Amino acid sequence: MTEFEPRNPDYTEAVRQSFARQGVMATIGAQLGDIRPGVCEIHLPFDDGLTQQDGYFHGAMICAIGDSAAGYAAFTLAPPESRVLTVEYKINFMAPGDGERLVAHAQVIKAGRTLAVCESDVFVFKGQTETRCAASLQTLIYINSPPGDAA
Amino acid sequence: MTEFEPRNPDYTEAVRQSFARQGVMATIGAQLGDIRPGVCEIHLPFDDGLTQQDGYFHGAMICAIGDSAAGYAAFTLAPPESRVLTVEYKINFMAPGDGERLVAHAQVIKAGRTLAVCESDVFVFKGQTETRCAASLQTLIYINSPPGDAA
Amino acid sequence: MTEFEPRNPDYTEAVRQSFARQGVMATIGAQLGDIRPGVCEIHLPFDDGLTQQDGYFHGAMICAIGDSAAGYAAFTLAPPESRVLTVEYKINFMAPGDGERLVAHAQVIKAGRTLAVCESDVFVFKGQTETRCAASLQTLIYINSPPGDAA
Amino acid sequence: MTEFEPRNPDYTEAVRQSFARQGVMATIGAQLGDIRPGVCEIHLPFDDGLTQQDGYFHGAMICAIGDSAAGYAAFTLAPPESRVLTVEYKINFMAPGDGERLVAHAQVIKAGRTLAVCESDVFVFKGQTETRCAASLQTLIYINSPPGDAA
Repeated sequence: MTEFEPRNPDYTEAVRQSFARQGVMATIGAQLGDIRPGVCEIHLPFDDGLTQQDGYFHGAMICAIGDSAAGYAAFTLAPPESRVLTVEYKINFMAPGDGERLVAHAQVIKAGRTLAVCESDVFVFKGQTETRCAASLQTLIYINSPPGDAA
Repeated sequence: MTEFEPRNPDYTEAVRQSFARQGVMATIGAQLGDIRPGVCEIHLPFDDGLTQQDGYFHGAMICAIGDSAAGYAAFTLAPPESRVLTVEYKINFMAPGDGERLVAHAQVIKAGRTLAVCESDVFVFKGQTETRCAASLQTLIYINSPPGDAA
Repeated sequence: MTEFEPRNPDYTEAVRQSFARQGVMATIGAQLGDIRPGVCEIHLPFDDGLTQQDGYFHGAMICAIGDSAAGYAAFTLAPPESRVLTVEYKINFMAPGDGERLVAHAQVIKAGRTLAVCESDVFVFKGQTETRCAASLQTLIYINSPPGDAA
Repeated sequence: MTEFEPRNPDYTEAVRQSFARQGVMATIGAQLGDIRPGVCEIHLPFDDGLTQQDGYFHGAMICAIGDSAAGYAAFTLAPPESRVLTVEYKINFMAPGDGERLVAHAQVIKAGRTLAVCESDVFVFKGQTETRCAASLQTLIYINSPPGDAA
């Protein structure tokens, strides 16, 4: 696995501050886990307000933490003044979100000058069992322009 | 545009009942809009609890309603006893979710025996302006097995 | 549909010259069709050397022209000195490539400073019948650096 | 990594026979490499007839072997009478195809009753250097109906 060198020495604090400003992460109860150069994890405990029609975690929640983990994994490698936007992603659902907790694990697989590419897997934990319930692939862009701008 | 023939005459009611059971749609405040054979719309009014770090709609909310609209568009064409699962999707973000309301418009472009393919666009409304903020492409599967099963 | 303004007045000639340099397009026998600002079509006549195991057009050929058409659709809107690279794409196969000819039709749906997004559909023609056999969504990037560079 | 049990004891021969019938693989000069349960590799030596406008491997060739490798990785796990169709895939290009040889390595990450999901990476070899030039994620379907049918 490639070793990445962060361009912002305060990358952990930058991730924490940005995450804390995301209203939706508080709404759903998501929490930051491991943060390393090119890596980010997000945890999401089960709640009845996060379900699809059969009572499992809704796919939207699997995506929400899978994509946010990818964004912050890319953000750990951003220059100090840059922001990160998700350009696009693709996700495959492989098992129902049936369990007490979701964990998204995102890993940068390419960090270029302008673009980053991440793999982000989401696992569901039920008792002693851990199941990979989704695999995803994201493209992100580093930009310097103010919020509200698109690339 | 292809005209689709629903296989379940009560497709509208089936969509409404399933949507009402999704805890996460109530949590975020999403509402069903237009439902026709092969088409579904979902609306989402702005709320501070749905934001990313700059105060706009979070991408996860854009996805949540884009993907759910696609699932229900496919569900309008399902046989009476079948369920619909999202196999996978891909979404491109094209503009920030800056506005008072999101509307997802999903359209089935292929309905096979086993699989359906949908295009789902998400628009953000700000004052008199409507902007297409995301385009997505989904694959869905019709299954008869009980909830919790994967395909 | 958005009207796009080309930034390079010689965009048609730029597309033709680039296409002529792609060895693989000659190898498979692909031809440029309609070229307009934000739009490009590519045609591919059937040949036994382009088949999958059942004798239809191989999915790789459907992709080859679908993705190239998207690249050139984006290239019609590039600044004079820029190149275009495909960042990523996603394609859904909806019908077998059973016919005498494939036609890819690509349309830019967002042209930003740095990135473009395209929808590209591929149709197969058999006798009087035209079938949409694939739908795809591409992300492309405009770059000024020399060939061999990545973004 | 999950260990997969092939359902067809002659899976290697089934892969070889199907590959030999694909006209396009002969046209471009692709060759089968490693074949194991849930895994397939395809090699492609450089040729001037496989290039994009800058003289590197065309993205269409990267896709062609990436997607075919995924299809055959899924095919190693198919029941004896089944066929495999690619439902869709998504690919990220991470480096130019600058080298003497491409190798696609595909790995099934989920094999269900009806659907399989694969990760397929493509590497380019130049002298002593090996670069991962693309990452992709595919959905495939096992079907029993005759060729020409769609799912």
